[in-house]
Amino acid sequence: MPLEALRFPITPIGMHYLLIHFDVPIVDAAKWRLEVAGQTTLSLSLDALRARPAVELVSTMECAGNGRALIEPRVESQPWLQEAVGTARWRGTPLRPLLDEAGVDDAGSEVLFTGLDRGIDGGEEQSYARALPLDAIDDALLAYEMNGGPLPPQHGFPLRLVVPGWYGMTNVKWLARIDVLDAPHTGYQNAKAYRMRQHEEEEGVPLTRMLPRALMAPPGIPDFFTRERRIQAGEHVVEGRAWSGHAPVEQVEVSTDGGATWRDAELTDDVGPHAWRGWRTTWSAKRGEHELLCRAYDAAGNSQPEAPQWNLGGYANNALQRVRVVVG
Amino acid sequence: MPLEALRFPITPIGMHYLLIHFDVPIVDAAKWRLEVAGQTTLSLSLDALRARPAVELVSTMECAGNGRALIEPRVESQPWLQEAVGTARWRGTPLRPLLDEAGVDDAGSEVLFTGLDRGIDGGEEQSYARALPLDAIDDALLAYEMNGGPLPPQHGFPLRLVVPGWYGMTNVKWLARIDVLDAPHTGYQNAKAYRMRQHEEEEGVPLTRMLPRALMAPPGIPDFFTRERRIQAGEHVVEGRAWSGHAPVEQVEVSTDGGATWRDAELTDDVGPHAWRGWRTTWSAKRGEHELLCRAYDAAGNSQPEAPQWNLGGYANNALQRVRVVVG
Repeated sequence: MPLEALRFPITPIGMHYLLIHFDVPIVDAAKWRLEVAGQTTLSLSLDALRARPAVELVSTMECAGNGRALIEPRVESQPWLQEAVGTARWRGTPLRPLLDEAGVDDAGSEVLFTGLDRGIDGGEEQSYARALPLDAIDDALLAYEMNGGPLPPQHGFPLRLVVPGWYGMTNVKWLARIDVLDAPHTGYQNAKAYRMRQHEEEEGVPLTRMLPRALMAPPGIPDFFTRERRIQAGEHVVEGRAWSGHAPVEQVEVSTDGGATWRDAELTDDVGPHAWRGWRTTWSAKRGEHELLCRAYDAAGNSQPEAPQWNLGGYANNALQRVRVVVG
Repeated sequence: MPLEALRFPITPIGMHYLLIHFDVPIVDAAKWRLEVAGQTTLSLSLDALRARPAVELVSTMECAGNGRALIEPRVESQPWLQEAVGTARWRGTPLRPLLDEAGVDDAGSEVLFTGLDRGIDGGEEQSYARALPLDAIDDALLAYEMNGGPLPPQHGFPLRLVVPGWYGMTNVKWLARIDVLDAPHTGYQNAKAYRMRQHEEEEGVPLTRMLPRALMAPPGIPDFFTRERRIQAGEHVVEGRAWSGHAPVEQVEVSTDGGATWRDAELTDDVGPHAWRGWRTTWSAKRGEHELLCRAYDAAGNSQPEAPQWNLGGYANNALQRVRVVVG
């Protein structure tokens, strides 16, 4: 997502970030079925899913690898700076009642979501699949619409999982199967990928909910090649969005002097409890070079570190955004 | 555009390539006007443009820098492999009658198109602007719809130029002004950028129409990290699209043995005279490693070189696509 798209409360299709592990599957919706395997197995067409109770959910989704390219030493994977985020209006049917119809036996279970996208990851051929603890799916949606239209192919047509507050890898696209499991899933994307680890042998801690982050739409105009920002001296609005998967955003602070002093931004647009919160402040820009920063605090007491912390996968780097602006 | 999207005759929004020099401007359509300055100056609202005669145009658009990252030594700019292409169904009003209404005085004139996007390029602050010879705009459209919906912000909302057959930089987005000029425009994007040059001091030749290119949707499944393709031994369809801005595609050849032998592919989908042409063939894949190639020929006698040819901007590299596939 180009960061100027932070000016939209709902990210337009084509500006929302995407992380696609393998190829985008091209699905014939008329032949497609979702299999839901609990104590019994349900097989549902897209029409059958659309006939079920529908809800809308505005949800901010961020890649667990957002910020990876700013971690040193560089981690080799998708080299996101801080743009791997977006907010969409999803429409679909709640997951929990469907699982109850298929039959869920005990509270210790996990639920496995398997997509149609297939490839090799970590040397293993696999369909993309991720499991979640059963108690994490209460707000989850099986979404067939995005921003008022059918799910685009690259966002999971005909059906994807949306789990508000969790990092993007949780929200399995091109859903083919849902399995209720008796024991923890040991597949690649749960057991090896998407864990906070310092070295290969470590079991690590699974990534779950998004850490808080504030981002600003960089002020002024860019240089095509260097991406440096330039702006005229004077009064300017500095604005952006902030989110956390743990609790609502309560406060956003802004610094225009490289972090020496901070002031509170005004909180603006609120597009739903699972979406980012708008914020804005004004800046009296004086000639010279300035470093602008912003910092989010959530209601659970979480905030953002000043500097990235290295980990093997380059995950969950919510260090402060720093935007250098030349005022002329 | 991820290359598996070659399987769609019309590229879905969000999979079409984008090259955005500066920031995406966020435009209030109610306040926006297009100024058209010929012998008189017209000022048109979006509603006024929509009330004019409308046409639809299916057009393939490719970045002049497509293939840049495959040129050695590497040229520093947007590092496209071969994915900077897409085909859309544009709807809008033909440009020529509007210019005639504004008054065009002689056939030697150029027409300058200026967008709302602003930044610094080559050290100069500028609004993105490109001029075209008057005789090049006969098929040009002022487009306000893409694939049946309003132009998305990142594709030029509320209005963009579409010049079928020309490289992408021609198709100015977020149009604000059109000026009929008496003399050749000397702005940065015409005089310095988008020219075939070997060194900085050379005047060079302007880039205009797209050279022919065939691309295949890479067969099999990918490795997440290496992007290597793997497939099972057996009979497989190999398919893709081919285009040229100079003349219709007449022939596509495919090699599955690294270019030692070639065979003709069958030409398939034809979605319009300014759009890519579908093609397909079958491949009896045997165990081992194979290099697949494809090559387009157009009706004007143009084809594709085996290897990239270096130039200062890394433009117009239509060397053959090479896809390595491991058959297991």
